[in-house]
Amino acid sequence: MDIADLSGKILNQDRRALARAITLVESGRADHRNQAAELLEQLRGSGRQALRIGLSGTPGVGKSTFIESFGLYLTGLDKRVAVLAVDPSSARSGGSILGDKTRMDLLSRDPNAFIRPSPSQNHLGGVARRSREAVALCEAAGYDIVLVETVGVGQSETVVAEMSDLFLLLLAPAGGDELQGVKRGIMEMADMILVNKADGDLKSAAMRTCADYSGALRLLRRRPQDPDGFPKAMTVSALENQGLAKAWEDMTGLVAWRKQQGHWDSRRASQAQYWFLEELRQGVLAQLQTGAIKAQIGGLSKAVEAGEITPSSAAEQILTGLNLRLE
Amino acid sequence: MDIADLSGKILNQDRRALARAITLVESGRADHRNQAAELLEQLRGSGRQALRIGLSGTPGVGKSTFIESFGLYLTGLDKRVAVLAVDPSSARSGGSILGDKTRMDLLSRDPNAFIRPSPSQNHLGGVARRSREAVALCEAAGYDIVLVETVGVGQSETVVAEMSDLFLLLLAPAGGDELQGVKRGIMEMADMILVNKADGDLKSAAMRTCADYSGALRLLRRRPQDPDGFPKAMTVSALENQGLAKAWEDMTGLVAWRKQQGHWDSRRASQAQYWFLEELRQGVLAQLQTGAIKAQIGGLSKAVEAGEITPSSAAEQILTGLNLRLE
Repeated sequence: MDIADLSGKILNQDRRALARAITLVESGRADHRNQAAELLEQLRGSGRQALRIGLSGTPGVGKSTFIESFGLYLTGLDKRVAVLAVDPSSARSGGSILGDKTRMDLLSRDPNAFIRPSPSQNHLGGVARRSREAVALCEAAGYDIVLVETVGVGQSETVVAEMSDLFLLLLAPAGGDELQGVKRGIMEMADMILVNKADGDLKSAAMRTCADYSGALRLLRRRPQDPDGFPKAMTVSALENQGLAKAWEDMTGLVAWRKQQGHWDSRRASQAQYWFLEELRQGVLAQLQTGAIKAQIGGLSKAVEAGEITPSSAAEQILTGLNLRLE
Repeated sequence: MDIADLSGKILNQDRRALARAITLVESGRADHRNQAAELLEQLRGSGRQALRIGLSGTPGVGKSTFIESFGLYLTGLDKRVAVLAVDPSSARSGGSILGDKTRMDLLSRDPNAFIRPSPSQNHLGGVARRSREAVALCEAAGYDIVLVETVGVGQSETVVAEMSDLFLLLLAPAGGDELQGVKRGIMEMADMILVNKADGDLKSAAMRTCADYSGALRLLRRRPQDPDGFPKAMTVSALENQGLAKAWEDMTGLVAWRKQQGHWDSRRASQAQYWFLEELRQGVLAQLQTGAIKAQIGGLSKAVEAGEITPSSAAEQILTGLNLRLE
C-alpha cells in the first residue's frame, strides 16, 4: 500500500481513501500496524482539528434517530460530519450491534457525512486505539465534527470521553424513580444531558426527567472547565427535529468559552498523556506473554490451578524477581 | 499484631477477630500487607469452603431488602451467613454507598450473620484483592454462605463473578421494552435472574418481566456448567418472603450438580488462575511507577503533553527498549 498516496488522498477529502485508511488502522496484522503508524505520522502535521463529540446512550433512547437528525442539521449548516462507533461489547458477543448504516438512511446518503459502522472486533484491548486513530483520520480528512457514539457498556464511556472534546449523554424520558439508574460516574463525565423523545405522549415525561437531571447536575462538584450553567440538561426531539439548534448553540458556546479559557488545549494535552500511558500499559502487559517470563507464568499458573500455591503468593514470586529494565 | 493469635480466633469463629482481620486486608500499608499475607497463608489450610454467592443489582431493585430477607431465611436454616460488598464506584465518589448496616437491621443483629460495610476505598486497583481476601477470611471463619453484593458499575460484576460460585442478578419489574437495558455480558454471567418485588401492584409486571428474561436466557449459548433449566429466571418478593425457599432449593440443586460433575472444582481452579494473572498484571503496572523507568515515562509524558510526539510513538519508544527480565 502506498502510504504517501493514501495520505494525500485523505487530505484531499477522498472518502474511499478514508474508509480504506480506517480499515488499515483496524487491522491487527503487524505490517498493517506499521503502515498505520506511518500514515498517522504523515497526517499529524495537517493541523486540522475537528470538534470531537462523544455520545453515550443505552439502546432504546433513540440514539440512531438523534444522530441522523443532528447530523443532518449540521450538514445543513454546511458542516462535514463523521460518525464513528466505539463498541467494546461487540468483542464479546462477536458481532457489531452498532453502526448499521441502515439505521441512518438519510445521513448515510449525505455527501457531507461519513458513517463508519463499528468493526467486528477481534481483540478488545485494541478497541480504544483503533477508535482514536479513526478519529485522527477523520480530522485529517477535514471533517468539522466527529461524532463518536457508544452504548453504555462497561468502560466504553470513559474510553469515548477521553477521546472527545464534548461528552453528551442521551436519555429517554423515565418514570419517577429511575434517576438513580444513570451511574454517577457517567453523569460526572457529561457536558450535556439530552433527554430525547420530547414529543407526543412522552413530552411531559421528558420535561420532568430533564428537570430531575438538572437538579442532579446542580449537586455535582463544579468542574473548572465549565462556565456558568454547565453541565446542563435539556430536552430534544430527534423525531421532530426540536431542540437541535438550541443544543448546537449551547455546544458551540461551551467550546468557544473553553478555547478562550485554555481548557480546550489543556484537555487535549491531558488526553494525549492518558493515551500514552494507556498504550504503554497495554504494551507492557502484552510483553508478559512472550519469552522466558511467559514460560514461568505458565508454570506458576498450573501450580495455582492445582491449589499448590495461592494466587497472591504466585504473583508475588514473579513480581519480586522482575526487573523492568530499559536497554 | 499477633497473627497466630488472630488466625486461631478466626478459626474459632470470633466475629471481632474476623472484623479486625478484614480491616487488616483492607489496609494499603506495606507492613499490613505483609501481615495480611501471613494470616491468609496460615488460614489456607483450614479446608473450609463456603458457598460464595455473587449478587448484582442496580439501586432501586430492592437489593438490601432481598439480602435481609434471604439472609434471615438462611440463618433460619441454621446457616451462618456473611455479607460483603464490592463497590469500586465508591473509590470515585469518595464514600461508601453500599454496606450500610442500617439497611439490614434485623440481619445485622442476627448472631449467625456477619455484615461487613464496604470500606471507603482509597485505591481502586486493590478493591478486587481486598474483597477476595475478605471472602477467604469469612470462609476460614466457618461461614456457610458468603454473599458478595455489588452495584452494577463498570467492571464490578466481572470482579464479583470471578470470586463467586454462583452469580445472581436481581432485577425489578420493568416496563415493556426495558429488557435490553440489562447488558448482555451481565446476562451471560448470571446463573439465576431473580425478579424482585413480585408483590402487590407489581406482581403481574414482575411475572411478565420474568417471562421476558426466561425467553432471553433461552437464547444464550448453553454453558457446560449448567444442567437442564439453567440459567433460569424466577420471581421473588423479598418484602413478603415469597420465592426465597424455591430460589435456595434451586441454588443448592445447581451446586450439587456442579460438584458432582466436577464443575465446582474446575471453576474455583480457573478463578485462582484468573486472580494470579490479575495480581501479576496489577503488580507489573505498579512497577512502571518506580525507578529509572518512571523518570523516562515522566519525560516522554511531558513531550506528549506538548504535542512534540504522538502518544503511540512515545509508548512505542519505551516498549521497544523494555525488557521484562527475571533475576
